Amino acid sequence: MTRVSSFPKGRVAFFVTGNIHKFKEARHVLAEYKVATALLRVKASEIQDDDIENIAKASVRDAVERCRLPIFVEDAGLFIDALNGFPGPYSSYVYRTIGTKGILKLMKEVEKRDAYFHSVIAFCSPKESLRCFHGKVKGKISQEERGNSGFGFDPIFKPSDSPNRTFAEMTTEEKNKFSHRAQALRKFAEWYTSTF
Amino acid sequence: MTRVSSFPKGRVAFFVTGNIHKFKEARHVLAEYKVATALLRVKASEIQDDDIENIAKASVRDAVERCRLPIFVEDAGLFIDALNGFPGPYSSYVYRTIGTKGILKLMKEVEKRDAYFHSVIAFCSPKESLRCFHGKVKGKISQEERGNSGFGFDPIFKPSDSPNRTFAEMTTEEKNKFSHRAQALRKFAEWYTSTF
Repeated sequence: MTRVSSFPKGRVAFFVTGNIHKFKEARHVLAEYKVATALLRVKASEIQDDDIENIAKASVRDAVERCRLPIFVEDAGLFIDALNGFPGPYSSYVYRTIGTKGILKLMKEVEKRDAYFHSVIAFCSPKESLRCFHGKVKGKISQEERGNSGFGFDPIFKPSDSPNRTFAEMTTEEKNKFSHRAQALRKFAEWYTSTF
Repeated sequence: MTRVSSFPKGRVAFFVTGNIHKFKEARHVLAEYKVATALLRVKASEIQDDDIENIAKASVRDAVERCRLPIFVEDAGLFIDALNGFPGPYSSYVYRTIGTKGILKLMKEVEKRDAYFHSVIAFCSPKESLRCFHGKVKGKISQEERGNSGFGFDPIFKPSDSPNRTFAEMTTEEKNKFSHRAQALRKFAEWYTSTF
């Protein structure tokens, strides 16, 4: 399936993801740069690795091999200091099993609640060599879930630059002011528009 | 590095693993079948997948491609019912980050403590097609850590067939009477000795 966001004329970037929320965030940010985002649903394998950059690199290589297009993928994780970086690269699996409630239980009576979200975008094409773009946002794990926007661990993460609200209490536009993914997307978009 | 267990004459099976504890358990079980176990340290990639059989299959294919030998790999996980199967395929990462203490905290005040260990051995050679062998052991998550044998989550798992002791309170020989890995290894060994 290919879904292209409506951008009348100009550049298109192909985003391989199975996550409609990520697509929505990418579409908003790339539109600022007059780049339309095309959602490509290709089964790209993900490796196990403690470093999300390695996961993103392997995925984009696999996806380009399968569909021979210039493509970007994104990998991200929530890294909690007091839990030695858990859930990190496996945030999606952890969300699907123990969820936000599991994280809050692990963080019960833990004072040091520092955490960060880290996003890596990897771009590759059949002709171009691979490039990565990073984004990070520091914050704290909240004491309880708040809000119902966004996805994943957004209801329990309060970014340092807006410490009274979780990501899930923000609109996509607001979240994109702070978020790890938006930062990585902007770095990618700047390079992409200056290159193609 | 190749380390071969001392078995004077007979068959050898090459085990690709970075885990010395798994090697030790395999060596004991395969010796029952007069098969010597050779530890091969090859960097075989692991994919992310909710099904450990798929992880083992991809690993063994990758390892055979790299070293062109008949090889087996093993993937295993602890699946806790009340946590929707968590930590499952990511047991090793979860052990390294939140550890047994994290699992016990997640299970605090949880009455339903059923869990199982699942092991998959995947064998492949440059000539043979891929085969998988499974082992499973049901049990319960203990209320506290007990014992210091074994590795990983052994100190918090009590197998149903010996419900008063955790795996970490058993010797390798005792654990091999019940364990998921030993079951999978015996199925593999029976097939291997009847085939080669």
